[in-house]
Amino acid sequence: MGAHTVLVVLYEGVQSLDVTGPVEVFTGAGNASGRPGAYRVVTASPGGRPVRCTSGLRLLPDTGLDAVGPVDTLLVPGGPGTRARLSDGPVLEWLRAVDATTAWTTSVCSGSLVLAAAGLLAGRRATSHWACLEELGKLGAEPTGTERVVVDGKYATAAGVSAGIDLALSLAGRLAGDPVAQSIQLLIEYDPRPPYSAGSTASAPAELVARMRANGLAIG
Amino acid sequence: MGAHTVLVVLYEGVQSLDVTGPVEVFTGAGNASGRPGAYRVVTASPGGRPVRCTSGLRLLPDTGLDAVGPVDTLLVPGGPGTRARLSDGPVLEWLRAVDATTAWTTSVCSGSLVLAAAGLLAGRRATSHWACLEELGKLGAEPTGTERVVVDGKYATAAGVSAGIDLALSLAGRLAGDPVAQSIQLLIEYDPRPPYSAGSTASAPAELVARMRANGLAIG
Repeated sequence: MGAHTVLVVLYEGVQSLDVTGPVEVFTGAGNASGRPGAYRVVTASPGGRPVRCTSGLRLLPDTGLDAVGPVDTLLVPGGPGTRARLSDGPVLEWLRAVDATTAWTTSVCSGSLVLAAAGLLAGRRATSHWACLEELGKLGAEPTGTERVVVDGKYATAAGVSAGIDLALSLAGRLAGDPVAQSIQLLIEYDPRPPYSAGSTASAPAELVARMRANGLAIG
Repeated sequence: MGAHTVLVVLYEGVQSLDVTGPVEVFTGAGNASGRPGAYRVVTASPGGRPVRCTSGLRLLPDTGLDAVGPVDTLLVPGGPGTRARLSDGPVLEWLRAVDATTAWTTSVCSGSLVLAAAGLLAGRRATSHWACLEELGKLGAEPTGTERVVVDGKYATAAGVSAGIDLALSLAGRLAGDPVAQSIQLLIEYDPRPPYSAGSTASAPAELVARMRANGLAIG
C-alpha cells in the first residue's frame, strides 16, 4: 500500500502556525504507528515559489501546485493571504480538481473561506477563525461557532490558527487509530496550559473582543 | 526607543512547531499593543543557510548567526537537531556571547539542553521535553518536571514542542502587559481542546508512556 499523502497548500500571507501544527502531527503518524513512511506530508505553492508567512517567516515548498501527484488528505491553512485566494480562479479550480479524489479535504482558520469560495462547502457545516464565521456563511457554508473542529462528510474544518493541532490529532486518530494520535500528542507534549483565559470570544474579556472586532484583524 | 528584537535560532533538525508557536505570538505583539514595529522577530541559522525541520519543512532564515545585531530576547527551539548542537563549540560560544546582553534568554523543548550545554543554566531551575529532563540535570540545570514554563531570573524554559506557545504568551504578558498577551491569544484562537488526554506522562496511558520510553523518541 502506498503512503497516505497529506498535501499542505502554501501561499503568500499564510499563517505559519496553521501550517506547522498539522505538519508536526501528520509527520509523527508514521513512526507512532510503527510504519515509518506510511504518512507523507508534502507542501506545495503556486509555481513552487518560496512563500512569506504573516510572521515574516519564509517557507520553501516541496513542489508546485501543478506538480502534485495523488492527494489523500488536502489541507488549506489560513492567514491574511486567503483574501487574495478567494478570487484566484486557477487556485480554486485546482482545489476542485484535487478535492474530487481526496479521502479528506480540510482547512485551518480562514482556509475554510477558500474551500467555500471553491464551492466545496456548499450547505455543509463548517467552521473558521471566529472573525470569519459571518463571511463563511455568505460563501455558502453553514457556520458553527462553538466547535473547535467540525466534520461534515469528508470535510473537516478547524477554528482559528492553533486549532489546526486539534484538527490534525482528530484526523490522525481516524486515520491511524487512537493510540497513534495519543502517542503524537505525548510526543509534542500537547498538554496546553495557556497563562490566560482569552482564547475564544466567550472567554476573553468582552471589552477586548469588542475592540478587536472594531479595529479589524490582521488575520484573514 | 528601538524595537524589541526576538532572535530565533534555526538549525538542521529543528522542530517547526517550536519555532512558529513563539514566532506567531511575538509578531502579534506589535499590533496588539498599538505599536506596530515595537517587536521584531528575526530568524538566524549558522551561515544563514536554509534549514530542514524534522517534519521535512524547509525554513529560510533572515540572516546568519554571525550577522545578528543586538538581541533582547533569545529563543532556542528544540528538535532532534539539538543533539549535534550540544558539542558545537562555535554555536555554544555564540550563545554565551549573545546571552551576555539579553533581557531574556529562552528555550522550547530540548532547546534547553543547548542552553545548559553552553553553561547558561548552571544551578538554575529549568524544564525541557519530558524525555530530556534527566539529561538536562546532567548538564547542570535543576530540572522541574511538572511546570509548563519555568522562569529563573532572565531564563525562561518551556516543556516540549507545543509548550512554546504558552512560554511566548507568558513572556508577551511580561513584556507588553496582560491585555496585549490576551489579544494575541484571541487572535490565534488559542482555546485548546485536545481530542485526547495524552499530552503529559501523567495523563497519557501508562502503557503508551512506557513504550515510548523504551523505544526512544525521534525527538531530541
